[in-house]
Amino acid sequence: MASPARLKAISAIREFDLIRALQQRYHTNSSMIMSGIGDDAAVIAPPKNRRQLLTTDLLVERVHFDLTTATFADIGFRAAVANLSDIAAMGGTPEYLLVSLAIPHSGTRRQVSEFYRGMMAACRSHKVRLIGGDTSSSTSGWFINLTLVGSAIPRRVLLRSGARIGDDLYVTGTLGDSLAGLKLLQASRRGTGKQPLAPRHRRFLIRRHLRPTARVSEGRWLSSRGWATSAIDLSDGLSGDLRHICEESHVGAEVTLSALPISPACRAYAKSTKRDPVTLALAGGEDYELLFTVPARLRAAFERAKVTQHMPITRIGTMTSARSGVHMLVENGRRHRLPFTSYEHFTSRQ
Amino acid sequence: MASPARLKAISAIREFDLIRALQQRYHTNSSMIMSGIGDDAAVIAPPKNRRQLLTTDLLVERVHFDLTTATFADIGFRAAVANLSDIAAMGGTPEYLLVSLAIPHSGTRRQVSEFYRGMMAACRSHKVRLIGGDTSSSTSGWFINLTLVGSAIPRRVLLRSGARIGDDLYVTGTLGDSLAGLKLLQASRRGTGKQPLAPRHRRFLIRRHLRPTARVSEGRWLSSRGWATSAIDLSDGLSGDLRHICEESHVGAEVTLSALPISPACRAYAKSTKRDPVTLALAGGEDYELLFTVPARLRAAFERAKVTQHMPITRIGTMTSARSGVHMLVENGRRHRLPFTSYEHFTSRQ
Repeated sequence: MASPARLKAISAIREFDLIRALQQRYHTNSSMIMSGIGDDAAVIAPPKNRRQLLTTDLLVERVHFDLTTATFADIGFRAAVANLSDIAAMGGTPEYLLVSLAIPHSGTRRQVSEFYRGMMAACRSHKVRLIGGDTSSSTSGWFINLTLVGSAIPRRVLLRSGARIGDDLYVTGTLGDSLAGLKLLQASRRGTGKQPLAPRHRRFLIRRHLRPTARVSEGRWLSSRGWATSAIDLSDGLSGDLRHICEESHVGAEVTLSALPISPACRAYAKSTKRDPVTLALAGGEDYELLFTVPARLRAAFERAKVTQHMPITRIGTMTSARSGVHMLVENGRRHRLPFTSYEHFTSRQ
Repeated sequence: MASPARLKAISAIREFDLIRALQQRYHTNSSMIMSGIGDDAAVIAPPKNRRQLLTTDLLVERVHFDLTTATFADIGFRAAVANLSDIAAMGGTPEYLLVSLAIPHSGTRRQVSEFYRGMMAACRSHKVRLIGGDTSSSTSGWFINLTLVGSAIPRRVLLRSGARIGDDLYVTGTLGDSLAGLKLLQASRRGTGKQPLAPRHRRFLIRRHLRPTARVSEGRWLSSRGWATSAIDLSDGLSGDLRHICEESHVGAEVTLSALPISPACRAYAKSTKRDPVTLALAGGEDYELLFTVPARLRAAFERAKVTQHMPITRIGTMTSARSGVHMLVENGRRHRLPFTSYEHFTSRQ
């Protein structure tokens, strides 16, 4: 890991000193970490009486992010949230982080430093510890790979495969904000960003795109109290991610479109650009909200509990038999098949 | 992890089906794995009464490998060995693998399939299980990031920091073979590969470069029997990696150059190209041999045990005080300071 020789290929050899300094700055001592940065592998005490969760996410310049619409601190923040959100969707607690970074020849010390700052800012409130990584030069753009290790209570891990026919379908937060924020940034870059949108809505949507929230406390609550039968995080958009739950659980789903939680800012953006806010909510990816199912017999208790706990959660549908597929219900009760319009990330939307 | 939507950016959408098929083919069921590929994170039962080891390695096209001198199966094999070797150097047992792959638009199904085949071939004898990963398109070359999880016996983990003054210094296998093999491949590509070298030597050296061995059983033996006080794997070359042990252990070292284990093939290659075989052995990286220290009071017992166990291990020096630095001893007993000629991987050597 973090092999010094690899860094020689980077034009400025002193980059390595920077990365070592950054890794040491963000490297927290803990009785659970026996050895971290500076050895061949990190050594940790594995959690007792817990399941362990491991997730890895790859982010590629001009595929998942674009340097014209995000700062390096934003990119680091979102890279961390993508992984934190995966652990949240399992009902887990994020614990240890490994980061691999391929840096182009044009990369500067300041950019690397800002990336780490953003990444660790997203991790701070979760007490995630940086335990290792690797660094290389890149002959082209930036490549980022984060691996996050977490833990969860045995038999309470939230899988995609646990949804049952009749379960209620819920979602945290609001949908479509991140996509609206991205479109605002792209319009600004093109100089076509003169929509009549209130500055507070604009700021809200852009922040939801650049600094999303991983729903870690919500996921832990759903897991520890045994509410949810299945969960997934919305990285690809509601329509795509709901399909994953349906496929893994061998069930169908009905979504009531009028129930979808859409923020006032997203509605204002949709109005100003003559878009359908429901389409934004269905297709918008990278909201990092949790989509999950709860048995219908728990509905009354769950609805009370979420209010007591101040959890921003909305019931949006119900799980049906696999035979009926994934439908959306429009206002007049007519069913339409939900189009599989999965989020296509950066490149294909340009 | 392995988010389907990300794959949409790949020109051929069916690539994703291939990767899912490959991940399922190489995904072994185990009572230790609760959920792997197909959920937000992999779920495993952490090892009991063990320390856990985590390492991650990033490999970049035209930095760590070149498609003109290696097949995709070779690249997959070497990527796995780089990680297996990190676990070996800690005295650990490799267990779980996560693989991230950024695939350029020119990438083919066959290339991805061959990469997985090579990677899993290196893992097979160690019973390492593929539990997850991520895949993306790349707007330029191939990027590979592997994260390997292993375990080791508490208080027997081999760190870089445990060497003491007076310890003997040992190395497994032979040194310089991988660099010689790479140079043979590069000469072939340039059409200047007409060295008078016996075909068996040529085959041996190229195989040592393309299909190196991770010294997992040697590392486990050194750890479980409590022989070694410190260890590192030779990914950057003896001179660079010895310096890491010295720095982390706050000691110096003396290396007897005439004791360095050099294969007949490497000697023949050096002779045919008028190179110094010792220079190849000192500077050659990616041999993935283990460099380690053993207390001098155990020397007689250790030398007997390594013969009994058929361990290919050579004593090459001794650890000294930090004040005296890292020296090499030449035949006539004169000391020369070891140059810090760390291996610079692919690009910078071209």
